[in-house]
Amino acid sequence: MIPDPLEIAVLRRMIREGQLTVPELAGMLHDRAVAYPDPAVFIALRDRADLLAEAASIDPGLPLAGMVFAVKDNIDVAGLPTTAACPAFSYVPVKDAAVVARLRAAGAIPLGKTNLDQFATGLNGTRSPHGAPRSVFDNAYVSGGSSSGSAVAAGAGLCVFALGTDTAGSGRVPAGFNNLIGLKPTRGRIPASGVVPACQSLDCVSIFANSAADAALLLAIAQGHQPDDPYSRVPADIALPPRPRIGVLAPAERVFADDAAYAALHEAALTRATALGWTLVEIDYAPFRAAAALLYEDAFVAERLAAIRPFFHGHADAMDPVVAAIIGGAERFDAADAFIAATRLMALRQQTDAILAGIDALLLPTSPTIYTVAELRAQPIARNAMLGRYTNFVNLLDLAAVALPAGFRPDGLPFGMTLIGPAFSDRALLHLADVLHDAIGAGAGATRAHPTTTLPRPVDDRISLIVAGAHLSGMALNHELTDRGAILEDVTTTAPAYRLYALSTTPPKPGLVRDETSTTAIAVERWSLTPAAFASFVASLPAPMTIGKVELADGALHPGFCCEPTAIAHATDITDHGGWRAYRASISAPPVQEAIT
Amino acid sequence: MIPDPLEIAVLRRMIREGQLTVPELAGMLHDRAVAYPDPAVFIALRDRADLLAEAASIDPGLPLAGMVFAVKDNIDVAGLPTTAACPAFSYVPVKDAAVVARLRAAGAIPLGKTNLDQFATGLNGTRSPHGAPRSVFDNAYVSGGSSSGSAVAAGAGLCVFALGTDTAGSGRVPAGFNNLIGLKPTRGRIPASGVVPACQSLDCVSIFANSAADAALLLAIAQGHQPDDPYSRVPADIALPPRPRIGVLAPAERVFADDAAYAALHEAALTRATALGWTLVEIDYAPFRAAAALLYEDAFVAERLAAIRPFFHGHADAMDPVVAAIIGGAERFDAADAFIAATRLMALRQQTDAILAGIDALLLPTSPTIYTVAELRAQPIARNAMLGRYTNFVNLLDLAAVALPAGFRPDGLPFGMTLIGPAFSDRALLHLADVLHDAIGAGAGATRAHPTTTLPRPVDDRISLIVAGAHLSGMALNHELTDRGAILEDVTTTAPAYRLYALSTTPPKPGLVRDETSTTAIAVERWSLTPAAFASFVASLPAPMTIGKVELADGALHPGFCCEPTAIAHATDITDHGGWRAYRASISAPPVQEAIT
Repeated sequence: MIPDPLEIAVLRRMIREGQLTVPELAGMLHDRAVAYPDPAVFIALRDRADLLAEAASIDPGLPLAGMVFAVKDNIDVAGLPTTAACPAFSYVPVKDAAVVARLRAAGAIPLGKTNLDQFATGLNGTRSPHGAPRSVFDNAYVSGGSSSGSAVAAGAGLCVFALGTDTAGSGRVPAGFNNLIGLKPTRGRIPASGVVPACQSLDCVSIFANSAADAALLLAIAQGHQPDDPYSRVPADIALPPRPRIGVLAPAERVFADDAAYAALHEAALTRATALGWTLVEIDYAPFRAAAALLYEDAFVAERLAAIRPFFHGHADAMDPVVAAIIGGAERFDAADAFIAATRLMALRQQTDAILAGIDALLLPTSPTIYTVAELRAQPIARNAMLGRYTNFVNLLDLAAVALPAGFRPDGLPFGMTLIGPAFSDRALLHLADVLHDAIGAGAGATRAHPTTTLPRPVDDRISLIVAGAHLSGMALNHELTDRGAILEDVTTTAPAYRLYALSTTPPKPGLVRDETSTTAIAVERWSLTPAAFASFVASLPAPMTIGKVELADGALHPGFCCEPTAIAHATDITDHGGWRAYRASISAPPVQEAIT
Repeated sequence: MIPDPLEIAVLRRMIREGQLTVPELAGMLHDRAVAYPDPAVFIALRDRADLLAEAASIDPGLPLAGMVFAVKDNIDVAGLPTTAACPAFSYVPVKDAAVVARLRAAGAIPLGKTNLDQFATGLNGTRSPHGAPRSVFDNAYVSGGSSSGSAVAAGAGLCVFALGTDTAGSGRVPAGFNNLIGLKPTRGRIPASGVVPACQSLDCVSIFANSAADAALLLAIAQGHQPDDPYSRVPADIALPPRPRIGVLAPAERVFADDAAYAALHEAALTRATALGWTLVEIDYAPFRAAAALLYEDAFVAERLAAIRPFFHGHADAMDPVVAAIIGGAERFDAADAFIAATRLMALRQQTDAILAGIDALLLPTSPTIYTVAELRAQPIARNAMLGRYTNFVNLLDLAAVALPAGFRPDGLPFGMTLIGPAFSDRALLHLADVLHDAIGAGAGATRAHPTTTLPRPVDDRISLIVAGAHLSGMALNHELTDRGAILEDVTTTAPAYRLYALSTTPPKPGLVRDETSTTAIAVERWSLTPAAFASFVASLPAPMTIGKVELADGALHPGFCCEPTAIAHATDITDHGGWRAYRASISAPPVQEAIT
C-alpha cells in the first residue's frame, strides 16, 4: 500500500491527495516495528495509543506531517528514558533534544528510542546490553554502529527516517550495512543540545534516509544555531562543482580486510563516478589514516571520559566491559597529553588541508568489510577499528560526509561509499551523493527499491552574461571572461528582434541593439560568472559598452551587452551578417579572386 | 640626526635619498643599545662587527633594508642562543624562526635577543633571571611582559621595531607601558615555526612599532601560511566600516585597580572615539572576563606544561620559582579536565560571539593600571592577573587586537587602549588604531614624538554606482539599493555632457544619455555596493535600463545608469530640469494658481 523505499515527498503527496492519513501512516509503521523480528532494534518503542494521539493532533499541512522517525537512545525525547544503552545511566528527560523538537514542530513523529553501542562508543552495534541489532540483509551480520538500531529501523522500513549520532563514523558505517543514505553533517550544524555527549567537540547528530533528497530536507529543518550547545555553529553552504575533482585511495591504500567482493564493488563505484564526468585523483591517504588513529589511540579518548566521568567513577561495573575498558583507558592521559594530541592533529591537518586543496571532495569506501556478530565479538577492538578505517578522521578534521548505497556482494550484503568534503559542503555533497546513488542503482533499504525523488541541481549563484562581440570565444577580449573563471554555458542567438552595429571602438566591438522592427536573431554566447567576477567585469567595462537585459531565442532574459545610445549614431548596421563572428570573417577574408591566384 | 619616533617610511626615504646608509643606521642603533642604561633589556646583543657586516651586505632597495629589530628571546635567530629567559633551557638554533627569516629576506636586521618573562609566562616583565626591564618612562615601574625587553627596546628607540609573542597579552601590555603600537595578529597569521611554545594553540608572534603604518607593513611581510607550524593559517582580510560600532565596558566593569588617572584617560579615549564618529555600545563584559579567567585558572595552563614537559621534569629547580609554580600546577589536571575546559570555553564563546555579532570591534583599556617592580614582586600572581584583565580572553576567542598609545598620567606614565576584532580583522583594526592614535595624539615611544606616516584608507572592494532617477534617495526604487546595504557616498552631478529623457517605464524612470553637444550637468548620486550586492543589482535590472560608465563633474568615470538606444526614441527630453528630482517636482507640484487659491 505504501511504496518502498519510504520517501517523504511520496508520502506527503499521498497524504495531501487523501490516499493516506497521518494516523494511518503512523499506525502502519508502528505495526511494522512491533512485527519486526529483531528484538534488539528498539530500546523503547512508543506506546501505540500515544503515537496515534500525537499523529491525530498534527496539522497535515506541515512539511514533515506524519513522517515517523526513530531516535537513537542517546538523544532526548521528552517522557521516554534516555539510556545511551546503559540502564544504570538512564534518565527521563522533560524536554526533547533540540533536533527532535525541530523535527516535531515540522510534523514528524518519534516512533521510539533505538539501540546503540553503549555511550555511542563503537562502530559495530554489538556493545549493548540490549543485544546486537543485525543488518537488515542477514541476521548473522552486524548492523554497524554505534547508531545500530536507528539504521536497522530505517533500512527495514519501520520509519521514514532515523536520527543517529556520528563521532567516529556511527552515522555512516551502519548506513553502509543497511543500504541507506547516512548524512554526517558539518560539526555543529545540527545542534546537539539534549544529546548525551560521546566526544562533545566532535559529536554530530546524523540522519539516516532513503534518499539524498530526504536527507537534504531533513537537514534544512534540523539545522540552525542553538546557543545552549557550546559547539553549535551558524549554518552556511559552500558549493562544489557539478563535475568535481574527487580524491580516491591509491591502489596500495585500498584495504578491504580480504573482502574481494567489497574491493570489486569499490572499483565499480569509481568507474561509475568516472562515467559521470567526475575526475578521480589518487591522493596520499596516510595523513588521513594517521588522524583517524588519534581518535581512539591518543588522548582524544579522554573526551569520552569527560562526558560521563562522575557516572563512570560510580558505575563502571554497570557498563559494557569493552566500552568501560576504552573509557577507563583514558585515565592514563593527563591534560598536557591532551594538548599534545591536539597539536599532533593540527600538524596532520596541515597535510590533509594541502591534499584537500587540490580536490573538491573525497570518495572512499564507507567500511572495508562487514563482519558477522560472531567475528566482531571474537576481536571486538581490532575489528571495530577496521570498520572505522575510512571514517574516523572526518570529524577530527572538521569535514562533512554522506554515506550512500553502492551495491551488493554476491551473498547479498550491501556495500557503501562515502563522499567527504569541507565543512559546510553538506548540501553540495548530498547533491553529488544523489547523482552517484542513482548512477550505481543500489536502491535503498532492505527492499533495494529505488527512491523516486531526486535533488534539484544545487542552487547556483552564478550570473549569466550574454556576449555578442569581442568577448566571444576566441575573440580579442574573451580573456576578460576566462581570466575571471567564466564558464561558457551556451552558444545560441538572441530573439529575432535585434540589430547589430559595428562601433568605432578599439578593439572593434559591435553594439547589440533591441529593435522590434528587426526580424534578425543575432549569434551570441551565454557565459556564467560568480557574483564577484560579474561585478568586477561590469565595473571595469569601458564606455560606450553597457550591460542590460538581452532576450534569447528561447525567450529568456539574461544580463548581457548593450551600448550607449550615442555609440550607434554614426555606426554601420551589420545586422545582415547575423553576428559579430560572421561580420569579422567577412572583412578579414581576402577577396575570393586573390585567394585563388 | 634621525627623527623620533623611528618610522620605516622615513628611514627608507633617508636611505633612498642618500642621507643615511644601512650600515650607518645599524651602527647608530647598536650604539644606542650599548649605551642604554637598563641592563635587563637584552639577553644577547649582537656583536657590532657582525651586525655591520650584515648591514653592508643588504640590498638597500629591499623594503625593510636597514630596519634594525629586536627579537624576543623565545624566537630563534640563527647562531644566537634561544633561552626563553631560562639559561638551563638554552640552545643555539641553526636557522632563523620563519618570521625572522621573512623579515631578514626583506632587508631587516636583528639587533639581539630581548628579555622576557620566562617561557613567556607572565604579563609583567619581572619573571626573569636577567632582571626586570623597566618602563621607558620611569625605572621604578615594570615594562610589562612577557615581551618586556622587546617593548623597551622599541620604546627607547634602540630599534625600528621589535618582535614579541602574545598568548595572554604579552604583545599588548608592554606596548601599553612603553607607548607603542602592539599588533597581536590573528592566531596563525604569522607562523610560529622556530618559536618556543607557551600555549602552542594560542601563541601569536606580535609586533611592536611606532605607528600602525609600520605594523601593517611588517605584518604584510611576516604573515603567510607555513605548513611546518601546526597552527599556521592562510592569511585573509575582513573589512570593518570606517565609522564602526565599538563595544566598550559598561561603567560597572571599568575596573582600574584604583588608578584614577587611568580611569580618566579611558574616559578621554572614549570621548575621542565618539568624536571620530564611532558609535560606542556598552557591552556585557562578563563572558569575556570569564573566558579570560580560564587561561590560568583552568586546564588550559597544562598547554604550558605540554610545551616543555621533558625539560620541566628535569629542571624545574632551574626555573623562575613563580613560573615553575604556575607550570607545575598544571600537573593536577588530567586529559578529561582539558576537554571539559575546552567545552567551557566554547560555551562562553557562544555568549561572546552573540555580543560581537552586534558590534564591529571592542575598545578596551590595555591594562587597568601599571605597577612598580616592587609592587609586582609583592603580589606576583594577583597583580599579574590584574594586568591581564582586558587581554587574556583574546586568543582563546580567536580574535585579533591592536594596542595603541592613549595618553599619560600626570606622573608621566603611559596609558594604552586596545582595539579587538574578529579573526582576520587585523588590517582593519590597524586602520582604526591609526586614526584613533592620531586623534589622541600620545605620539610613540619614550619621546612621545608623533609618527608622520599614516595608513591609507583600507582597500575597499565596494563598487560605485551612479544613479540619476528612481534609485535616488527617497525615490521609488531607492530601497533596491538600501536593501542591498548600499551606502550613499556623494551627491553630485555628471560632467556637462549629458541629456536626460523621461522614459515610458513603470515606475517612471529617466534615461541618462551622454551627448557631447549638451552642456548640461545632470544631478546624480554616487552609491557604493559590495561586489555581491552590485552583481545582484545589475543582474536584476529590467530593460531598457543598462549599466555603463558615467562621467562625473570631477572627471571620474564610475559604473552608472544608462539605457538602451531604443528607449529614448520617443522619450521626452527633460535635460533642462537638470535632474530627475527637479523634473518630478515640477510635474507633481500643483500649478501655482491653484496653490494660492
